[in-house]
Formats: sequence, structure tokens, C-alpha cells
Amino acid sequence: MGEDGSLLQTLEIGGGVHRFGEDRPLRLDSGARLNGLEIAYKTYGRLNADRSNAVLICHALTGDQHVASPHPITGKPGWWTRLIGPGRPLDPARHFIICSNVVGGCMGTTGPSSEDAAAGRIYGLSFPVITIADMVRAQRMLVEALGVETLFAVVGGSMGGMQVLQWAADYPEMMFSAVCVASAARHSAQNIAFHEVGRQAIMADPEWAAGDYARQGKRPEKGLAVARMAAHITYLSEAALQRKFGRELQRDGLSWGFDADFQVESYLRHQGASFVDRFDANSYLYITRAMDYFDLAEAHGGVLAEAFRKARDVRFCVLSFTSDWLYPTSESRAIVGALNAAGARASFVEIDSDKGHDAFLLDEPVMDAALRGFLDAAGEARGLTAGSPA
Amino acid sequence: MGEDGSLLQTLEIGGGVHRFGEDRPLRLDSGARLNGLEIAYKTYGRLNADRSNAVLICHALTGDQHVASPHPITGKPGWWTRLIGPGRPLDPARHFIICSNVVGGCMGTTGPSSEDAAAGRIYGLSFPVITIADMVRAQRMLVEALGVETLFAVVGGSMGGMQVLQWAADYPEMMFSAVCVASAARHSAQNIAFHEVGRQAIMADPEWAAGDYARQGKRPEKGLAVARMAAHITYLSEAALQRKFGRELQRDGLSWGFDADFQVESYLRHQGASFVDRFDANSYLYITRAMDYFDLAEAHGGVLAEAFRKARDVRFCVLSFTSDWLYPTSESRAIVGALNAAGARASFVEIDSDKGHDAFLLDEPVMDAALRGFLDAAGEARGLTAGSPA
Repeated sequence: MGEDGSLLQTLEIGGGVHRFGEDRPLRLDSGARLNGLEIAYKTYGRLNADRSNAVLICHALTGDQHVASPHPITGKPGWWTRLIGPGRPLDPARHFIICSNVVGGCMGTTGPSSEDAAAGRIYGLSFPVITIADMVRAQRMLVEALGVETLFAVVGGSMGGMQVLQWAADYPEMMFSAVCVASAARHSAQNIAFHEVGRQAIMADPEWAAGDYARQGKRPEKGLAVARMAAHITYLSEAALQRKFGRELQRDGLSWGFDADFQVESYLRHQGASFVDRFDANSYLYITRAMDYFDLAEAHGGVLAEAFRKARDVRFCVLSFTSDWLYPTSESRAIVGALNAAGARASFVEIDSDKGHDAFLLDEPVMDAALRGFLDAAGEARGLTAGSPA
Repeated sequence: MGEDGSLLQTLEIGGGVHRFGEDRPLRLDSGARLNGLEIAYKTYGRLNADRSNAVLICHALTGDQHVASPHPITGKPGWWTRLIGPGRPLDPARHFIICSNVVGGCMGTTGPSSEDAAAGRIYGLSFPVITIADMVRAQRMLVEALGVETLFAVVGGSMGGMQVLQWAADYPEMMFSAVCVASAARHSAQNIAFHEVGRQAIMADPEWAAGDYARQGKRPEKGLAVARMAAHITYLSEAALQRKFGRELQRDGLSWGFDADFQVESYLRHQGASFVDRFDANSYLYITRAMDYFDLAEAHGGVLAEAFRKARDVRFCVLSFTSDWLYPTSESRAIVGALNAAGARASFVEIDSDKGHDAFLLDEPVMDAALRGFLDAAGEARGLTAGSPA
């Protein structure tokens, strides 16, 4: 067995697709219900004897459940292998790590590209609009189905961080600690605006066919690629783009045409083109909509601290990056302020980085160290001991 | 005559379309030539006896020659009436103000939607790629054709500011002063990236028809609208979007669908939809390309100061806005640093504003005051006296 094979064995990978019976519909914020909900998930490690070591990882807009093992379509490593693995802050030797594809997603969990059994056809736009709270409600159903009553930690970045906050608001009694990275408690006007550009790009593509493309054998690849390109710029800082690409050309000299002259153009085109291989256009619409609808304070009388009133016993870790202009540090400070006002325990680290929002997925040793310190301390308080998972 | 009519009379509006003979081709940086160049322009005021009061206004990406009088398509007031008019910093009673549509544009100057006389058809993508220097070369031809040997001032914001800098590099002997607002001496990787998203949105629209839409009776309106929406976000600051729209809804409650729920969505859609009524998709491709190619230092051995070496006698005014993240103050500082290094005279004002890049088109009294002070002082040095244009 090769090194990779050994590593994958060490991870003790589990998971699959959990299907809930018709008697367990997912109640949605919109008032609709999803019957026959399926949740695709991965697990790493084993639940210990006192069921105290479960960790839920919440993924971001275009992420999925393949957080620590290779992606089945792209073959790339999991998206948070820096955080999860042997010797990492979350270690399958110590933690039972769960990561599920969100409701509305396209990697196996019920979403707009799923079959609507009652109608006998693919949902498309008949799929109900979902919220961050709906995603969290589904996660709770999965976690309980896996025999977990209390999570040691709920951890996520970006949209994953929104889910973490929603967990703290809705099910604080089910969690010991919470880690919210590069996120916000509500979507700003600029956040909504960028998402709307992406949605309009998708809906402008005639191959989208009013959302019915799957049944018509079409694929709105061009629109989805443009959406991804626009979004991708917001994930990087200006400094990172300048450092990485500057005005470097693809070839010697300009083309005097509309080919990709600059490396940054070529890079963006590649980001767009490769994205459409692994993502569904309607899922992009639904998940961006869920993020835009997200405003945790709004559901609590406009006072964010009220959302955390029952989460006083949860240990929070909030991280932000100085160059993140999508979810700037000010948003994290607002979260920390509300946690303090609610009397909750919150650690906050603003990490100096020029990598922009994407820093939470990249090599940021300070983030790794902060998470390790927080999770180790929380583990000690929780009575988790290294190397004794079961 | 109503008040508006009186105002328009006071402006002494002139202009039209200047056609250059086949013996006066426009030589382009690409090596191509444009024969039978036509330049559409507006003038305000009269050239004085010693021909010392001419001011050239350079417009931005989606601007045009209608700088101080109503737009013929939209009926809206000129785009810089705050700066130009009776009692304004530039006053037709004192100044002879010229503003021309750039080469590659779509408001009357030769561009991709023009007829290629030699081929007997609309250019489309057979139109040569143009540069900021090409735009300036064409402006020089127009200015000379209008009997102006020396410009009292060359003034522009955003892409207009790039033209101002190019003027200073190429024809410093023809200008007395220069005003560069909210601009940069080169396009950054992030600037290029946003433009590339816009271009890809246009080219993804099947109605674009590989640039041949005009001949095929098509209009890539959806793609162009998406391009405009993405660009428009970059013209505003996050704070301005938040203050203007926040998370305000269009109606009571959410739609639980993909209608415009938030006012910012509706606003953006309106920006996109109204833009396509007045702008040509291919012009958008060509002009964004010209901006992306712009790097004034690159043509001068990589040293920006070298570009200004011959412009030591030109009086410069450089303005930036604190919340402009498209052309941030750091870019203006680089310009001022280069001007200082070249031994040129430069005034620099960073204006505290939360309106973002668009501040240069909006109500910014500090900008008005700074321009008035600079232009008055320059006018005094030039011997221009109020109320004596001829």
C-alpha cells in the first residue's frame, strides 16, 4: 500500500448517504417540507465510548463533504486537509469528524438536481428555497441519526461559519464549542450584489432553460463559469492577485485581440471552466440565495446578542483575516461583540494575511496554531484524551 | 424659453462629428491604421482670441462627449455638470471646453459598431484593438482640427484620468495643466480580472454571435447587462452600498424565489437593463481591453517618472477618494511620486469620501473646491480672466 493509501487508512473514512423516511420530512423556513431527504456525508475517525468526540464540519458555498479525503470528481485532496488529519488540530485518532453536503447542494444531498419522487422528475426550480437554518436543521437530523447527542465542536469557514452561528442560536445544548472562520452574521448589500451578478449570469444563459436544463439535456456552463469568475475575484485580495499575477503575460507580447493575454485572465477562465465540471448551476442559485437571506439578528428582534442568549456555555473561537474584504474583520468583531454581550465565552483572533477570504483554505500557520490551541484546550475541558478514541 | 433652455443657451453648445480624410489615417499602437476616422464631440463656450482657454475633458469607460448637456438617448443631464457650467470650476463663459467620444466608442466616434467603408460592412471584431494612447492620438487630431495649439487643461476621471496621464507623456508641450481624478497609471491584476469577467459575460451570450451581432440583427443584451452589473459593484464602496440599500427589501417579506427580493438586487438589475439601451457590447470589449493594456511605466523602461520627464512644465492636480477600491489612493500616490521624481509640479488631494470610485461623478464639495482652486490658480498663471472669453 502506498503512502496515500496508508494515510487514507489512518483517516478511518466512513460515510455514505443517509435517507430519512417519509415520516421524517425536513421542515423548511419557507413553510415547505422536503420528504425523503437524503444527506450525503463523510466521516473520519470513530465515535468514542462516551460519544463526546464528534466534530461537525460545515462547508462553504462551493464546498462539499469531502473535507479530508480526495474529491471523487476532481481527484484533488480534501479542502481542509491542513486542519484535519493525523497530527492536525482535528485528528481522526482523537475526533469523530462528520462533514455533510448541505441541503440544496449537488454532491449527493437532496437539492434542485435531485429527483422529486412525488412528481417523478428532477426538481429544478420547483425545489423550495432553503436557508442556512434549514441546512443546520438537516445536519442535526444526520448527527442524531449517527448516534451523536452532543457535538464536541461545530467548525466552519465562510458559509460554513454562518452554519456554526446558526447552530449556536438553534441548538446550543447540542454543542460544546464552536469555531467560526472568515464569516459574518448577515450578508451585506455588497455580498448580495455579487451573488446577484452570479445568479443573473446563470439565468442569462439560454442553456439554463428557466432552471429546467437537466430535463432538457442542457448545461448552462457558460453562465455558471462567469458566476464563478466574478465570485472568485472576491475570494482573493487585490494584493494577492497582484503578487500572484501582476500584469504578467501568457505569452511574449500582447495578442491585440481578446484571447487571454494576461495570466490573471487565463487563471480566471480556468477557475470558471473547471468549476462547471463539479458544480450544478441551480445549486449555485439556491445556496447563494440561502446566504443572502442569512441575517441572524433579524430573527432575534434585530439584536444579534439575543441569538446567542442560550449559547452562554458554548466556547467560541472566531477568526478573521485582515485582507478578507468579502467578510471583513468588522463582521467578525460584530459577532464577538454580540457573544460578549450575551455573556458567552469567545476567543477572537484577527490573522494578518494578504491572501483575502480564501486564506481560510490556504497555508496560514497562525490559523492552524490558533485552532490547535483552541481545540486542545476545549478537548481538555471536555475530557478528550489523545490517542484514546474508543 | 424655460430655465433649462436658458441654461443650455448659456453653455454655448457646439460640436458635431469631425471626419478626417483618407490622407489622415489614425496610426494605432497595434500597427493598424484607421482610415476615414470620425470623431463625435461637444464643445461648450468659445475659443478666446489668443486661443489659450481650451480645455479637453476625457471621459471614462462608459462615458461619452455629453459631459455638460443632456444625453441624447437617456435625456439625463451631462455626466459632469457639477464641474462644468455657469459659475462652475469650468465655465463656458471663460473656457472653451471640448469633450469627444473615444475611439472605439459607440456615440458617434469610429468604433466596432461603425461601418468599415473599405469592407462595406460593420467592423465588429475586425475593428483593431486600440489603446489609451490611440484615444489620445485621436483627441490630438481633433484638438488641432479645432484650431487649438495648446490646451489650458486636460481633465479626466477614471479612464479619463488615464488619458490625461497619456497626454502628459506624449504631448506635454500642448498642455498647460492636467487634472487626473480617481485613476491609475496602470491596470492592476484585480482591475483586469473584473474586466475579464465582463468580457466573458458578453462573449458567453449567444446573441453576441462572435461579435457579429449587428450584422445578424441580434443584441447581446443579457451578457452586456451582467458585465455592467459586475462593474457597477466596483464603482461603489461597501459602505455606500450598505448605507444606500443595506438589507432593505423590495416588498414586505421575502419572495422565497429568485425575484429581486433586496433593493440592491433591483438596483443592480436596473443598472444592467438601462445600460444596454445606450452602450454597445463590442465597444465594451474594446474599451476595457484598452484599459487593461494601459501601463504607462511599461512604455518607459518600467519607470513611471520617465513618462513624465518632458512634462516638467505642466501643472498637475491629482485627486483620489479614500473609499475608491477600484483605483485606490495608493495608485494616485504612485503617480504623484513619479511626478515629483520627474521634477513636475503636482498638487495632490486625497478626499475623504465613502462613495467609492463613483465619487468623482457625485456630489463631493471638497472635490469641487479642490478643482476650482487648482483651475483658478492655473487660469491666473495662464492669464485667463473671468468673463472675457473672446
